[in-house]
Amino acid sequence: MTGQTVRDAGEFGLIAALEAALPAAVVSGPGLRVGIGDDAAVWTPAVDESLVITTDSLMESVHFRLGWTDWRSLGHKALAVNLSDLAAMGAAPRLAVVTLGLRGSERVADVVDLYRGLGSLAARSGVLIAGGDIVASPGGLVIHVTLLGETRGGRYLGRAGARPGDVVAVSGTIGAAAAGYRILLAGRRGPLGKATTADLLVAAHLRPEPRLALGRELLEAGASAAMDLSDGLLGDLPKLLVASGVSARLEAAALPVAAALRALFPDAWLELATRGGEDYELLFTAAPAVFAALCAATAPTDTTVTAVGEIGERSEGGPLLTMRGLDGEERAVQTGAFDHFR
Amino acid sequence: MTGQTVRDAGEFGLIAALEAALPAAVVSGPGLRVGIGDDAAVWTPAVDESLVITTDSLMESVHFRLGWTDWRSLGHKALAVNLSDLAAMGAAPRLAVVTLGLRGSERVADVVDLYRGLGSLAARSGVLIAGGDIVASPGGLVIHVTLLGETRGGRYLGRAGARPGDVVAVSGTIGAAAAGYRILLAGRRGPLGKATTADLLVAAHLRPEPRLALGRELLEAGASAAMDLSDGLLGDLPKLLVASGVSARLEAAALPVAAALRALFPDAWLELATRGGEDYELLFTAAPAVFAALCAATAPTDTTVTAVGEIGERSEGGPLLTMRGLDGEERAVQTGAFDHFR
Repeated sequence: MTGQTVRDAGEFGLIAALEAALPAAVVSGPGLRVGIGDDAAVWTPAVDESLVITTDSLMESVHFRLGWTDWRSLGHKALAVNLSDLAAMGAAPRLAVVTLGLRGSERVADVVDLYRGLGSLAARSGVLIAGGDIVASPGGLVIHVTLLGETRGGRYLGRAGARPGDVVAVSGTIGAAAAGYRILLAGRRGPLGKATTADLLVAAHLRPEPRLALGRELLEAGASAAMDLSDGLLGDLPKLLVASGVSARLEAAALPVAAALRALFPDAWLELATRGGEDYELLFTAAPAVFAALCAATAPTDTTVTAVGEIGERSEGGPLLTMRGLDGEERAVQTGAFDHFR
Repeated sequence: MTGQTVRDAGEFGLIAALEAALPAAVVSGPGLRVGIGDDAAVWTPAVDESLVITTDSLMESVHFRLGWTDWRSLGHKALAVNLSDLAAMGAAPRLAVVTLGLRGSERVADVVDLYRGLGSLAARSGVLIAGGDIVASPGGLVIHVTLLGETRGGRYLGRAGARPGDVVAVSGTIGAAAAGYRILLAGRRGPLGKATTADLLVAAHLRPEPRLALGRELLEAGASAAMDLSDGLLGDLPKLLVASGVSARLEAAALPVAAALRALFPDAWLELATRGGEDYELLFTAAPAVFAALCAATAPTDTTVTAVGEIGERSEGGPLLTMRGLDGEERAVQTGAFDHFR
């Protein structure tokens, strides 16, 4: 059984094994009238809530390599990147549907592990897995998640609300996931531990932790704009600035960077922290008084917030984004997000 | 411009071109507060409605070949197969998110055509396109759709309600899509016309028409169970029978089969009609009086319904499904749905 492949088990055998791998609280729960197994799921949202909907895929050899990750972490990450989008809107996650594209040669035990990783994060995030689809994918593994969340009375954190004078801030630390990716690229192999500095950075790449509680806190406290960091600070911040019609100035010395990142990448840490992707931290703006209140509110939690710059007016012909470097010089930043096709 | 590839245009250029390809009524509408362009969409469903959620993918070389379909039809079908799932639940479709996995070498004009086909069906089905994702997919084109619909007060058509004495019925005709697939496999090429018998069958394969109005009619009239036909009558009916704890008896002579199918496949039409996939017609059960009312209600429409058998008790050791063949002999049917991995 443990060596059985998806092809041996067949589509319907696999679906039964995956459903069994999910915690009970994830396959049935509030409002879910029809879950896994019919043509579609039926779910009744709470009255007075608006829905927040996001969808994100992980494609083998684009977003992950099977030699670099364990299957549990892969399941975790497939849900985490979607949860991060809802965190950035200030929404509470509720329900997901999952599509797996499989070659057929995968071991059932590995795909079950993927579902265990996904199910474990779903359980502690309050997410129901309501169904999905299993399809053949000769070109490689695909994990596709669509996630629904709720937000009371249609309130949400968008990208367009930043105002001159607002603080620019990020949660946690930035650059660790990109450093972990470089470590994997350089040939580190073997199971994920927690013992070494390198392991910490690799873990940041393989198992990002979505900032759900902080996202709701930002919405409640009245942050002016937010998005999640998937393409790096200098890739993502310009999208928020353009949407808001403002400019910003960053302070390199203020960026929150893990000691492990500075230690292992003494020459590259700033580049990794500003242009490295997949942090899945929150980037947000808030009026100074709101930011001060947020600092106080988050101080007792695991999720720190750090001011990294300030929003300014957008002047005709002026730069969208500048950064004062470690040398004290302020320079215009070359902007541009990661492009899948370039 | 017309020869520009996705790689030339870049991810953000492509997104702008795709959004522009959608009808205005599809990118904004009732309840949609945030559509394409933020981390997630925000949408307020109608009060007193339950959500119905489905997700379905088309994978190149598994579900379609680019040499066989035009891009508009491909966009149509990617949405149609999802609409068909909601039709089978009796739900009204409302909102979709779309993920495209692209190699990068596709022509922008072709991907825009795909979106035109999808947008056109969305517009006439009342569906908003609220966002999605574009990802690199070196293994081939992937079109992934998650569709949300609504159903009043949580009422829906499930698979588990069939009762002994109910009529087993299907909509439209069956087997045409599988015949179209065989025609394509045998080497028919060229643009899709409407002139020949073969074209009719190929069109059934490339551009299925979801039975949305009929699905809602079935729910209103009180049909006892329903599902859509994607794996063939003998592949799908057993799922409904098992879910309902009943058996069924089919009449081969009663199956609704297009004249084109009988004419072009004189020896194989029965096999195609019973085991061919991708009909996207509705298979349903209803008490005889309900079925009679449905016949009367649908008679003036384009969507016919045909009784093809009857539900019986499930007896221990007895067959789940029998069919009286064209020779008048009743035989147990070997059941089993299409399995992606077998």
